Amino acid sequence: MSTHAIGIDLGGTNLRGAVVNGNLEIVARRQTLTRAEEGPDAIVGRIAEIVTGLRQETGLTAGSIQAIGIGAPGPLDSRAGVVLTTPNMPGWENYPLAAKVEQRTGIAALLENDANCAGWGEYRAGAGAGCRDMVLMTLGTGVGGAVILDGKLRRGPDYAAGEIGHMIVVAGGRQCGCGSRGCLEAYASATATVARFREAMKEGWQSSLAEKSSAAITCEDIFNAANAGDNLAQHVVKETGRYLGLAAAVLANLLNPERCLFSGGMIRGGEILFAAIRAECLRHAFAAPGERLEILPAALAGDAGLVGAASLVLELAGGPELPVEKA
Amino acid sequence: MSTHAIGIDLGGTNLRGAVVNGNLEIVARRQTLTRAEEGPDAIVGRIAEIVTGLRQETGLTAGSIQAIGIGAPGPLDSRAGVVLTTPNMPGWENYPLAAKVEQRTGIAALLENDANCAGWGEYRAGAGAGCRDMVLMTLGTGVGGAVILDGKLRRGPDYAAGEIGHMIVVAGGRQCGCGSRGCLEAYASATATVARFREAMKEGWQSSLAEKSSAAITCEDIFNAANAGDNLAQHVVKETGRYLGLAAAVLANLLNPERCLFSGGMIRGGEILFAAIRAECLRHAFAAPGERLEILPAALAGDAGLVGAASLVLELAGGPELPVEKA
Repeated sequence: MSTHAIGIDLGGTNLRGAVVNGNLEIVARRQTLTRAEEGPDAIVGRIAEIVTGLRQETGLTAGSIQAIGIGAPGPLDSRAGVVLTTPNMPGWENYPLAAKVEQRTGIAALLENDANCAGWGEYRAGAGAGCRDMVLMTLGTGVGGAVILDGKLRRGPDYAAGEIGHMIVVAGGRQCGCGSRGCLEAYASATATVARFREAMKEGWQSSLAEKSSAAITCEDIFNAANAGDNLAQHVVKETGRYLGLAAAVLANLLNPERCLFSGGMIRGGEILFAAIRAECLRHAFAAPGERLEILPAALAGDAGLVGAASLVLELAGGPELPVEKA
Repeated sequence: MSTHAIGIDLGGTNLRGAVVNGNLEIVARRQTLTRAEEGPDAIVGRIAEIVTGLRQETGLTAGSIQAIGIGAPGPLDSRAGVVLTTPNMPGWENYPLAAKVEQRTGIAALLENDANCAGWGEYRAGAGAGCRDMVLMTLGTGVGGAVILDGKLRRGPDYAAGEIGHMIVVAGGRQCGCGSRGCLEAYASATATVARFREAMKEGWQSSLAEKSSAAITCEDIFNAANAGDNLAQHVVKETGRYLGLAAAVLANLLNPERCLFSGGMIRGGEILFAAIRAECLRHAFAAPGERLEILPAALAGDAGLVGAASLVLELAGGPELPVEKA
């Protein structure tokens, strides 16, 4: 019986792959640049190279690899293995990624939303281990999400569930990249945090980052400045935390999960960020679900998506009790 | 084997009971005033009288009744059968309602949140029949909710899930009765709809309802005026619909359900209300989950809670595949 799987994490910048064993440990890994501008066929070629490299390194035959789990940005149709569109990568409309990878590698492939992979990885082998109900928010250019209820990844009939970043927190509020207004992502992503900081500087607020050109300021700069005591940076980080805490409270009242994890570079904001998230969540949630909800940083950092993608394919093949809801 | 169950709907004004058969049809019903001011023991007595009356009418012995399902306002602990608090009824702190009803009737009793009962009733025998993933919003003094995913009622470890009315739609917005701000309930309940209408009249907006004293205007008046062509009433009803549609969009993006039902007297608002809900949902949801989501009025009106409470106890006894998530 196959006891290994390959996880692929297809990001806008980096393309990564890993072999994961039955204990969900990474035993080999490969990384290259995605170079999205070259189009999907070229990327399938690079995925095949990664798979070949991983097999050479581990000595695993195709038959001893259960399958390849591919985490990719959505929207996508997981059942058909098709990427529907990817706003940040050209040429991907209705692209049958899973089938193409199968053709090139001779190994079955499964396609899943990247945030869902990260959530499943944390759930099985990271900060979500040991609970049955968990949500994850990935904080980056956007805000991704995963919802795991009763031990199963919530996907829904269109594989569209889990878009926590597009929870509307301010009706009629800030413009979001999705076309809607007032989404959490428009307030609390890394991009939105930088945008709010720049706006405040333009309005005349003082900051130790003032010597930097506004366009060069990154989210990391803001978190570093906040941790070094900069007032404006602390204000902006806390505001990000309040929006995230408000979203956590909505999830607590709606789904009553046990844990709410946050991943992405922004979690280096540390206690300034997490204290604001926790306080705002308790302020808005009902007592029982608010006190129940543990708000924690994710534990696997960049490996969550690789482990989750591999884990999903290992478990999908593992028996009648699938880790996703019935189709 | 028992093929009947009794459903009890404990409302702030009316106390109702019904015998439901294995086809989820109501075969007998009783109703009385709740008279909440007399305290919980008196209400248990009235529940026992209803059960006795229902048994006499149907000729069912205690042994041929599976159990009594009681739908009550939350927060409550369903597993322990305890009402934790009820903001609108005095003397209910930590009251073991299920055990008290069992003592008085000799029949096992199960306690469940009233909106969850209404949702489950609609799911099994009403406008939710035939789907696996459904949400319900009950529109009244407040906004209640039920979430059914993959054929199971979502309750969560604290029986606290489903509080759709306390989804925050305007961060820092209108004060809500729950203590938080900006909740859906503070914008789109019947009470909030009336409040927004009165505010608009105070600001000088003209309406055919102007001859009525502001304090006497009801939600029904507003919906009637809207259907009769009153501009202000139409504006206010559409605004209510937009908030509800926004909440439906959040649920579509988060959970990708098949149907979103609305129940309560407000659904008599008809197409003016529902057209606004549907348009706003499509505006804010992603394409696939937004187009998937059927937005419909509930079908069972006031019977949904009775049928749902009885159905839950019939099904909980029905086998290993419980209609709620694993504990």
